[in-house]
Amino acid sequence: MAEWIHTVTARTPTNIAVIKYWGKRDESLILPVNDSISVTLDPQHLCTTTTVAVSPSFDQDRMWLNGKEISLSGGRYQNCLREIRARGEDFENKEKGIKIAKQDWQKLRVHVASYNNFPTAAGLASSAAGLACLVFALAKLMNAKEDASQLSAIARQGSGSACRSLYGGFVKWIMGKEVNGSDSLAVQLADENHWDDLVIIIAVVSSRQKETSSTTGMRDTVETSILLQHRAREVVPKRIVKMEEAIRNRNFSLFAQLACADSNQFHAVCLDTCPPIFYMNDTSHRIISCIEKWNRFEESPQVAYTFDAGPNAVLIARNRKTAALLLQRLLYFFPPSADTDMGSYVLGDKSILKDAGVEGINDVQALPPPPEIKDNVPAQRNGGEVSYFICTRPGRGPLLLSDESLALLDHSTGLPK
Amino acid sequence: MAEWIHTVTARTPTNIAVIKYWGKRDESLILPVNDSISVTLDPQHLCTTTTVAVSPSFDQDRMWLNGKEISLSGGRYQNCLREIRARGEDFENKEKGIKIAKQDWQKLRVHVASYNNFPTAAGLASSAAGLACLVFALAKLMNAKEDASQLSAIARQGSGSACRSLYGGFVKWIMGKEVNGSDSLAVQLADENHWDDLVIIIAVVSSRQKETSSTTGMRDTVETSILLQHRAREVVPKRIVKMEEAIRNRNFSLFAQLACADSNQFHAVCLDTCPPIFYMNDTSHRIISCIEKWNRFEESPQVAYTFDAGPNAVLIARNRKTAALLLQRLLYFFPPSADTDMGSYVLGDKSILKDAGVEGINDVQALPPPPEIKDNVPAQRNGGEVSYFICTRPGRGPLLLSDESLALLDHSTGLPK
Repeated sequence: MAEWIHTVTARTPTNIAVIKYWGKRDESLILPVNDSISVTLDPQHLCTTTTVAVSPSFDQDRMWLNGKEISLSGGRYQNCLREIRARGEDFENKEKGIKIAKQDWQKLRVHVASYNNFPTAAGLASSAAGLACLVFALAKLMNAKEDASQLSAIARQGSGSACRSLYGGFVKWIMGKEVNGSDSLAVQLADENHWDDLVIIIAVVSSRQKETSSTTGMRDTVETSILLQHRAREVVPKRIVKMEEAIRNRNFSLFAQLACADSNQFHAVCLDTCPPIFYMNDTSHRIISCIEKWNRFEESPQVAYTFDAGPNAVLIARNRKTAALLLQRLLYFFPPSADTDMGSYVLGDKSILKDAGVEGINDVQALPPPPEIKDNVPAQRNGGEVSYFICTRPGRGPLLLSDESLALLDHSTGLPK
Repeated sequence: MAEWIHTVTARTPTNIAVIKYWGKRDESLILPVNDSISVTLDPQHLCTTTTVAVSPSFDQDRMWLNGKEISLSGGRYQNCLREIRARGEDFENKEKGIKIAKQDWQKLRVHVASYNNFPTAAGLASSAAGLACLVFALAKLMNAKEDASQLSAIARQGSGSACRSLYGGFVKWIMGKEVNGSDSLAVQLADENHWDDLVIIIAVVSSRQKETSSTTGMRDTVETSILLQHRAREVVPKRIVKMEEAIRNRNFSLFAQLACADSNQFHAVCLDTCPPIFYMNDTSHRIISCIEKWNRFEESPQVAYTFDAGPNAVLIARNRKTAALLLQRLLYFFPPSADTDMGSYVLGDKSILKDAGVEGINDVQALPPPPEIKDNVPAQRNGGEVSYFICTRPGRGPLLLSDESLALLDHSTGLPK
């Protein structure tokens, strides 16, 4: 009898923090210095798909990311593999002749293939989605009975922010108090249907700077920034309470005010680090100025912005109509460069382009300056500063994909298709 | 008898804070939320020259700045005029037939002509030098007996940082405790000869952003930044003590570490402001990265950097030899654009150019990459990002100019020459 291969395929979203995680109190367990809150992004536009396979014929743990084999020896992967293996349960599939006893998981080797439907290097939290997906898929493979919060505490040991990708909608990562990290896990504040007016546009900003990795960056901040402790102890706890209230009541003004202030404060503590860390660049600053001017002109926030450890802007519009007005502004200030077509410049939910009345490059050129800058026309239009935009929305959590055609590993060889 | 004109001409330096002033506790008296410490820059390269004149023939207070008449009605000028007038004493010059009684200063009108030997709009603290010079010259004109510290408290009411330009060398602005501001004044920590190894190179950075004025910027920070109060109460007082020690002992490592950290923290609280304030741009960030990399490579600080409310870098080298190495690096990373000659690209003390072995554009093109980036060559060279450099050093305080030919007002008409 040919040896069996047992596979599971899952899809997990990425997430964007609106109250930021920056700084660990325990480096190896990945325990943060404060709570954080995130919005899960629609996996249709930004997700990781992962197939995990197990077979007595595999002689070592192996992983392929976006088609290329990578090492699984890193601590983040080893933590997740070890924790899930320890929680595996008996599994049987009589039809395929598979029978695995609880204790076998320690000996059986796994193959993992993972694929991001967005550029890995673009600074779009690919490790959050990736580690969450690995943990979720392995747990299903090994028949672990842990719920999403328990799995989040495992994903956290792979990549801190990954713990928030185990749920859809609005998610809080509770920092916890225990030394062993057992209570540092994610909980869902509200699912993706609770506040479904929101529209999210991501500006992927071109950058020529090499960025500080978030792991080293937050270590340097913890060690050298005097402002970080004040932020973590005094500022964030109050903001967490208010942000939960803003989400519960769908209070966009409060939500935007808190998200923008917290993004700016996170970048402030990066700047207060020695040596200083700069994640935002001039283009990021210009995007903020554009939003701030507009929000002030309207006398209430239309759009919230938030920036992670890189120059990309994540812009959250209060509703679809506002999102169309936002996209007009973004295309006005940051038109595609001459050789870029609109189809590859605005990705994701392209229906927003239609709402904005901007379907071709001619429509971009014909855009009038937004009313809030009327006195200062002609404003600078900065072609080439943005690589592309992705239109998306809050979305659902991890999902098992039962359709065998979506698996990334061949069910007979256990190797990438 | 033709009516007399009595004139005085003075020259006052600009200064750069190494522990920053940001935030007022009293807007109208200009009382700061923390002490600050500055280095006075050599007036030979950066100063304001001001001639003040008084005559019974003048029918109103008038002022010319860089040859253009400007209004004296602003609060900052009025504060200084009022305070000095109240302190005027009897004055007599028999030879010229001038006799002014103490109480006459209230009625006599003044003419003021002021000239900066550096570009006013370049963000080089022109208002600090200007207001200090106005107060110093008016005090001499009106025979006021106040010493430099007492005059600094008056200049402070014109422009906060102006109070630090009443002394040469290293100056501390004591925030004071009194509600009326009488004890918020400058004192000299050490004169310009105490630590005369230091060399200062200013990079005037090209900018296309309109900057937030420091007056509105600091008001917004005081009103909205949660981190500012922590900085002012907890961080700065300790840094002031250490910076005084660094200056006293000519401890460059400590000086550089404090100056860089405090500049970065000032920009951090600007970023923590709502809406956020960005004074540094990508070029500023690149200059910081260049210095940080070099300092780390040498395993001890060679150069300190500090940025005020704009993108210009003020770089303080530990000695002349280091300054030459610094200038080589700056010209390597930021060469002049094709149509700029070296003579107008490096201003001030041009002897540093010779020390650096860079006298022409060919020498710039031949510069090898600095050793600390050897593994990453070819590094980007960013022509056009810097407008020009100014080489200078710590310098002396205000000076009376007795040479009539240096006066900016004609001694017979009282109008600009």
